[in-house]
Amino acid sequence: MDATEDSLRKALAEKQSAVEAQGNAVRSLKAAKVAKAEIEAAIETLNALKLEKSSIERQLQAAVSGNGPDGSVNREAFRQAVVNTLERRLFYIPSFKIYRGVAGLYDYGPPGCAVKSNVLAFWRQHFVLEENMLEVDCPCVTPEVVLKASGHVDKFTDLMVKDEITGTCYRADHLLKDFFLDDLSAEELGAKIKEYGIVAPDTKNPLSDPYPFNLMFQTSIGPSGLSPGYMRPETAQGIFVNFKDLYYYNGNKLPFAAAQIGQAFRNEISPRQGLLRVREFTLAEIEHFVDPEDKSHPKYCEVADLEFLMFPREEQMSGQSAKRIRLGEAVSKGTVNNETLGYFIGRVYLFLTRLGIDKERLRFRQHLTNEMAHYAADCWDAEIECSYGWIECVGIADRSAYDLRAHTEKSGVPLVAHEKFSEPREVEELVIAPVKKELGLAFKGNQKMVVESLEAMNEKEAMEMKASLETKGEVEFYVCTLEKNVSIKKNMVTISKEKKKEHQRVFTPSVIEPSFGIGRIIYCLFEHSFYMRPSKAGDEQLNVFRFPPVVAPIKCTVFPLVQNQQYEEVAKVISKSLTAAGISHKIDITGTSIGKRYARTDELGVPFAITVDSSSSVTIRERDSKDQIRVNVEEAASVVKSATDGQSTWDDVWSNFPHHSSGSTED
Amino acid sequence: MDATEDSLRKALAEKQSAVEAQGNAVRSLKAAKVAKAEIEAAIETLNALKLEKSSIERQLQAAVSGNGPDGSVNREAFRQAVVNTLERRLFYIPSFKIYRGVAGLYDYGPPGCAVKSNVLAFWRQHFVLEENMLEVDCPCVTPEVVLKASGHVDKFTDLMVKDEITGTCYRADHLLKDFFLDDLSAEELGAKIKEYGIVAPDTKNPLSDPYPFNLMFQTSIGPSGLSPGYMRPETAQGIFVNFKDLYYYNGNKLPFAAAQIGQAFRNEISPRQGLLRVREFTLAEIEHFVDPEDKSHPKYCEVADLEFLMFPREEQMSGQSAKRIRLGEAVSKGTVNNETLGYFIGRVYLFLTRLGIDKERLRFRQHLTNEMAHYAADCWDAEIECSYGWIECVGIADRSAYDLRAHTEKSGVPLVAHEKFSEPREVEELVIAPVKKELGLAFKGNQKMVVESLEAMNEKEAMEMKASLETKGEVEFYVCTLEKNVSIKKNMVTISKEKKKEHQRVFTPSVIEPSFGIGRIIYCLFEHSFYMRPSKAGDEQLNVFRFPPVVAPIKCTVFPLVQNQQYEEVAKVISKSLTAAGISHKIDITGTSIGKRYARTDELGVPFAITVDSSSSVTIRERDSKDQIRVNVEEAASVVKSATDGQSTWDDVWSNFPHHSSGSTED
Repeated sequence: MDATEDSLRKALAEKQSAVEAQGNAVRSLKAAKVAKAEIEAAIETLNALKLEKSSIERQLQAAVSGNGPDGSVNREAFRQAVVNTLERRLFYIPSFKIYRGVAGLYDYGPPGCAVKSNVLAFWRQHFVLEENMLEVDCPCVTPEVVLKASGHVDKFTDLMVKDEITGTCYRADHLLKDFFLDDLSAEELGAKIKEYGIVAPDTKNPLSDPYPFNLMFQTSIGPSGLSPGYMRPETAQGIFVNFKDLYYYNGNKLPFAAAQIGQAFRNEISPRQGLLRVREFTLAEIEHFVDPEDKSHPKYCEVADLEFLMFPREEQMSGQSAKRIRLGEAVSKGTVNNETLGYFIGRVYLFLTRLGIDKERLRFRQHLTNEMAHYAADCWDAEIECSYGWIECVGIADRSAYDLRAHTEKSGVPLVAHEKFSEPREVEELVIAPVKKELGLAFKGNQKMVVESLEAMNEKEAMEMKASLETKGEVEFYVCTLEKNVSIKKNMVTISKEKKKEHQRVFTPSVIEPSFGIGRIIYCLFEHSFYMRPSKAGDEQLNVFRFPPVVAPIKCTVFPLVQNQQYEEVAKVISKSLTAAGISHKIDITGTSIGKRYARTDELGVPFAITVDSSSSVTIRERDSKDQIRVNVEEAASVVKSATDGQSTWDDVWSNFPHHSSGSTED
Repeated sequence: MDATEDSLRKALAEKQSAVEAQGNAVRSLKAAKVAKAEIEAAIETLNALKLEKSSIERQLQAAVSGNGPDGSVNREAFRQAVVNTLERRLFYIPSFKIYRGVAGLYDYGPPGCAVKSNVLAFWRQHFVLEENMLEVDCPCVTPEVVLKASGHVDKFTDLMVKDEITGTCYRADHLLKDFFLDDLSAEELGAKIKEYGIVAPDTKNPLSDPYPFNLMFQTSIGPSGLSPGYMRPETAQGIFVNFKDLYYYNGNKLPFAAAQIGQAFRNEISPRQGLLRVREFTLAEIEHFVDPEDKSHPKYCEVADLEFLMFPREEQMSGQSAKRIRLGEAVSKGTVNNETLGYFIGRVYLFLTRLGIDKERLRFRQHLTNEMAHYAADCWDAEIECSYGWIECVGIADRSAYDLRAHTEKSGVPLVAHEKFSEPREVEELVIAPVKKELGLAFKGNQKMVVESLEAMNEKEAMEMKASLETKGEVEFYVCTLEKNVSIKKNMVTISKEKKKEHQRVFTPSVIEPSFGIGRIIYCLFEHSFYMRPSKAGDEQLNVFRFPPVVAPIKCTVFPLVQNQQYEEVAKVISKSLTAAGISHKIDITGTSIGKRYARTDELGVPFAITVDSSSSVTIRERDSKDQIRVNVEEAASVVKSATDGQSTWDDVWSNFPHHSSGSTED
């Protein structure tokens, strides 16, 4: 880290602390209900501090992304090279292009679709199969009640402003992005827009006040028009509502994990950054249900020794950068809240790096306290660095009991787990027994409200009442449904603690949720896999994707060296055996030079090429080294199979077969 | 076929012909614009014939489905047994059950989800990989313009009636289902509802007139509320709009096929029949683009000798039943329109039977002429018989150039293919050259309309005009935009045929579309795979799914015979090697009797069970035969792997390893 970056990080940390302190001050003032003017002054100070903090962040970002303007130009140029290749080779296509497209919707073309399906197959192998997860598949169409319970109907919003003349919509925070104002309320944002004199970018017309726009695609289920529904914004809710059945399926035992892969939808106000912020995307989510009192994990030891870039809250606050930490250390020190969370962080690291994500551009960043939902115990994002900066690609959160409780409450179906005790345990239980006859005499028509209020007392309140009744014989009691105090006498209620034998513990499990944005991972993988190298003649730059075999859209191409029937027959024989072995491949019988044909498949990230230059033996070329070996026709498919399904590496193959010098074939 | 069935089929065929003849009569009368009363009388006769036809159909259906009431009771009972097992073992779950569910939405629970993902993986292997198809992945959210072009916005409707008091909606044809009236218009259905005095089933209130209800889920794209969108009703449109790019990707060569797997949505008025008619479902669709002048297929010979149940139009019309036909014969006789269509019928047959669909309950039924869209060249449905009757599970249609033309017209982007001639060909081209000066003098402000009408003449019209002008010097010409005749003189237009050299042929490809309803196939597979057998003690009936390994949700279970640490350690070792081999499996260490544990996994359709009864060797049991072999611990995983991935069959395994007599272990 150079000197500028170092001092900027320190300055940022100081400012961050100042913002937090001032934020606390504002909250105290609000709680103390001091004069409005005083609160407003404190908020002004807070916003000024935020602005200063944002300015430092901007400088830091510029410094990190390659030391100023030059770096960002390079990033732009690199991104353009990648995106050009991706679009030209149909890795992805703007959807409905012949109708001028729709912002934020993309198709995966043939190689992109194959990469996606390989990533998902590997995800299933790495998580579902290896961890014995219960995979489910729920619909995208979701009735309102479910998303009301989850909070999405009320809170899944972005602040929007409208051009007051044309009605064009903008995301309020995008218009203010140069001012780096985080976490402002609608009112605060509105005030800033006025203060800075911000107008609609296209027309210079005045803007409306900011208001929340719900990001879910709304629809209507059934013909009546009376059942609102939404396209799910995440797949998780489908798992939560099935908790009871899944727990039963797992033999009523914890822990267990359920998983789901599927489409999710967000009606972004203004989609941007290509594949990174889109309106429809594939999520792969895991909900691991665990006893809140025991978050250990039996396979934790398998990942504890992994060491990789972590960026704990502490380091972010004190202006340091991400650093290599042994996962086991982070867990034992309590930086990572618990073993299960740690286990999944480790598994996510292995998943991403095995896909081909560069481990130097992958970090696990802990959420700051103010970033996390109030119920979350801890939360880490796997962030991958690409030309757009550090992108959140996987969120790994300990969401405690929040989701199951929310659905329990709304549905009335208890989503709980049971722990049977080997022997019954004695527990003390609070018993509040209102004497209805006396209460009826005293309160007549209000009796029911008084009874309910008495029964609703918590342990502390009840024990205080008991003490007061025993000493004074009478006590004033506020009945909120009556909005007044009533007088409770000793004969009106019995309060006691009774010993009881319990045979089991009933509790709401905690859920640890690793949630994968598949499209974002794939885009970052495209950038991390892309490189350019000069052609043999040195007259042009050739594009290559260095996808590992597990990800490569096609595993192998078959090229007859020249157009001739004999070679083409051999190519067909090899193709047949590749198909039988389940290896996706392509025959290219165009008469183009072999060098051009290699370049063409390098650009698709095909790891191996079989060139037919005789009818008994052929060459196999590896994409990145361009090394070639010579094998018999009959062996070709099995060599490619072993090198693509993980049984062996190219190094193994290289040491087992005679080498072939490419001679003049490469160009 | 018994006598009743035979005579019913004959009667049905006669009635069907009478209906067709009367239908033609009605059309002729309408075209001839005869008096309204006459048309109405003819329609009345037509409807009476339809009613008679439907009554025969009903009798026939009863006869076929197991000879009357008894048969249908058995079917109901069988279905209940299957569905109970499926729901109890969480193959599927009514979605959002804790909120009392939503009609027509289902979740796949763990085993169902695994079956589905296996079916899709096999589909990819069988079609995409083996045929080198271009797989794409397009969004579900679709802008209106695309579905306007495809016809869905205007025509993807069912007729609905409303309870006039409560507003409850019904599908009009469901209310009339006892009268078997097919293909009635909204007016005809409304008249029948009045005629038969049909009221709302729940309230007996009067019903509204029938009106079309669009079955697409509507939504709005972006924040403005001004861009209507729909959840796609099929995946095909995503492929058609990408034709140009995909054709280029394929080296501008025909034929090629594109494929897509994904969710589709239909907002059914009243979903029914469990998994068979749902509001969200997975489709797997192929669009094979081919030169309309050459629909041969290079791999056709590989399927030509397949023989299976086909039900050509002819046989349906003449009251026969489906019969075994060699595919090659159906194609060569022209029963199946072309080789490519025939090839896909054969591939679909192989796909379904390899999944485990019973070939005796699978037939390919050709659409009757009046069932097919006007543009379709030929269409066959793969129908699978289950307890609900014969269910359409795959549609295989030659849709000619319809879809590409529709999108060409709406988008203005030509979705065409080019055939380069090896040598330029001489063609005659019609040239119509209006002489604008003369036309301007003669028609002033109407000149433009006259010019356009002249240019729009087809070859026949133009050559007739040329002849008339040459003989008479003047001709009357109807200009439709002016709604009148004008007089065209010889000096106003030159019409000629010019010889031209063409270097290529430009044409719109035909598309052959196999479209798979994955959920329907899976449901039928569940029924075809289910059977019951007595427990060893004979005291209960046990459920079994005889899934082939490729489909089975879990390939193998591992059971320590008794609860003991030594056996559990061995089980873990085997589990590890199964995971490494990529075989989904489950360890069951409950102390339940081994017979009960076998029964439990038989009910999930797990093909193999490894029982650990020593630390050196174990037994492997096959589900359906209950035969057991003995293998060394180290070999267990590889034996299961070879028997599940198709390298070997259980018969091979059985002949290669020592047999184990189950003794008392089974119960």
